[in-house]
Amino acid sequence: MPTKADPSSPDGTAPGKITIADIAAEAGVSVPTVSKVMNGRADVAPHTRERVEAIIRRHGYQRRADERSRRSNLVELMFHELESAWALEIIRGAEQVAADNGLALVLSESQGRLTPGHGWLEGVIARKPLAVISVFSDLTGQQLAKLRARDIPVVVVDPIGEPDLDTPSIGATNWNGGLTATRHLIELGHTRIAMIGGPERVLCSRARVDGYRAALETAGLQVDPDLIRYGDFHVASGHRQFAPLLDGPNRPTAVFAGSDLQALGVYEAARAAGLRVPEDLSIIGFDDLPVAQWVGPPLTTIRQPLQDMAAAGTRLAITLARGEEPEHRRIELATSLVVRQSTAPPRGRAV
Amino acid sequence: MPTKADPSSPDGTAPGKITIADIAAEAGVSVPTVSKVMNGRADVAPHTRERVEAIIRRHGYQRRADERSRRSNLVELMFHELESAWALEIIRGAEQVAADNGLALVLSESQGRLTPGHGWLEGVIARKPLAVISVFSDLTGQQLAKLRARDIPVVVVDPIGEPDLDTPSIGATNWNGGLTATRHLIELGHTRIAMIGGPERVLCSRARVDGYRAALETAGLQVDPDLIRYGDFHVASGHRQFAPLLDGPNRPTAVFAGSDLQALGVYEAARAAGLRVPEDLSIIGFDDLPVAQWVGPPLTTIRQPLQDMAAAGTRLAITLARGEEPEHRRIELATSLVVRQSTAPPRGRAV
Repeated sequence: MPTKADPSSPDGTAPGKITIADIAAEAGVSVPTVSKVMNGRADVAPHTRERVEAIIRRHGYQRRADERSRRSNLVELMFHELESAWALEIIRGAEQVAADNGLALVLSESQGRLTPGHGWLEGVIARKPLAVISVFSDLTGQQLAKLRARDIPVVVVDPIGEPDLDTPSIGATNWNGGLTATRHLIELGHTRIAMIGGPERVLCSRARVDGYRAALETAGLQVDPDLIRYGDFHVASGHRQFAPLLDGPNRPTAVFAGSDLQALGVYEAARAAGLRVPEDLSIIGFDDLPVAQWVGPPLTTIRQPLQDMAAAGTRLAITLARGEEPEHRRIELATSLVVRQSTAPPRGRAV
Repeated sequence: MPTKADPSSPDGTAPGKITIADIAAEAGVSVPTVSKVMNGRADVAPHTRERVEAIIRRHGYQRRADERSRRSNLVELMFHELESAWALEIIRGAEQVAADNGLALVLSESQGRLTPGHGWLEGVIARKPLAVISVFSDLTGQQLAKLRARDIPVVVVDPIGEPDLDTPSIGATNWNGGLTATRHLIELGHTRIAMIGGPERVLCSRARVDGYRAALETAGLQVDPDLIRYGDFHVASGHRQFAPLLDGPNRPTAVFAGSDLQALGVYEAARAAGLRVPEDLSIIGFDDLPVAQWVGPPLTTIRQPLQDMAAAGTRLAITLARGEEPEHRRIELATSLVVRQSTAPPRGRAV
């Protein structure tokens, strides 16, 4: 999506009418230098690059259609990390849509950082993908601007924070999922329900915790801050955050884990403490990864349609790359409750 | 890796000395037509394409160094399917090495076919990757020849069949892994040991079954063909192949599954039949996917170093793309036994 030129811009240039030669003249550099900047080549002095990019942004340079068609047939999928089966669900959804459109998928990983480093952007610009799909990671405003200046649209799948209003995004109804998970436990008769959340700064995680709180409060139950713990979304974190909650005299009879992997960590903590699932402890997860049905007992969880989210994000990115306006720029796909065998009424209670 | 010209070739051309103009003259076509064929463009008549490719193959056309450097910074990772956590381990190993070398990874999937279709090759040739890594899938001789004619080396990771001698490959010591798995069960005291194998035509699967047979025979135990079943490597197959073996009067007390996912299917079949693992049935898998440690009880398995295999394959591909000769062209990385809690002596037997 090209940056739109402000109609009231000082020199009154209509958007899409400026040429590379105009940009070169205004910046006082050669045409090849402007091309180098647009192609992400490294052999341009930083201050020259910045001057050229500022001019491109100001005028909203519009590539000609034949230039657009000379783009590679690549869609760039950028991950925060490739560590879990979660990532595979995203890859599968995106790959299917890319293949259906004759496109190939490039994977990159910001190696555990929630914002990718500088080398990543240079690589992307050199590859000239049709679009970038950023998965569970945040691009900086500057990174977004550089991609926009080159007509490379960005779509965020499962945003960490609140993407700026110009950035299209696909998420899931996380708050609603948290509400549904907790209500399921309340309906079984639980009143001491622990919450093992993901990282506090991550929006989807906060939404799940808020849904948990809302379910308790609307059921007239007290929210006990001691029962809410934050970690990351992995197995070890689930174990580590949950184990201390088993020590007290008034231990929880049920737990809502912010991810299936955290729920597996809770399984481990329960096994280590000699507790049976679900007889002594009910556990519900979030995601519905394939592993949820294979563990013993199979895990009750909130299904997040990860493949559909990635597929919708990829379709949205392709639409934008074609210069078309999508029907919706922000979508949240519905989550749903999948009841398996890890949840039951608390002991001593008939239902 | 360029196809080496035969020193005794009819016209005695030395390898690497022929130009695009020579190829065009010999084929009776224009220079741009030869370029189109080399760049995988679709707008060339099939018989023209074949004639040009045959000439390139015969002469072993060697791209100039500057042409080589104009390649994209992509490594192509081609999967038979992206369905399981197995694929993710391969992706992670390859991505790390690609990133360390400033390269990006392109993923493609042959959508469940063990040999990719025609559209795949056209896409690859248009993308001009530095190298292709074919994972658990076979390229046809023609596909290999077309890639070689364009100086795109191919490395096979975890070959399905026996790759031709020119194709470098990275595998695991599957036979040895099968032997080790079965010996572990024999040492615990089991004598009725079932084998749930992968697809019969797949070489790594056959090697595991042969290792199983060798362990039984060298221990003086009889191989009962009724206890050997073949399926695919997924959960449902493990369940389906194993369940009938529980019906007879002389049921097995242990089972070696050809993959961890098949082992999880065996868990399901055991649960459905009311058998406890490992008290009533010992189960050992193959792969050591992350899920193996999360299931209840944690799965004893044979570790296959999937990330290391993918990393070694990617390094090998990069070496070949640089025109360097690798130290080894065929490597098998060692498997190892990981004992967890799904195997134990058979009931009624003291050890």
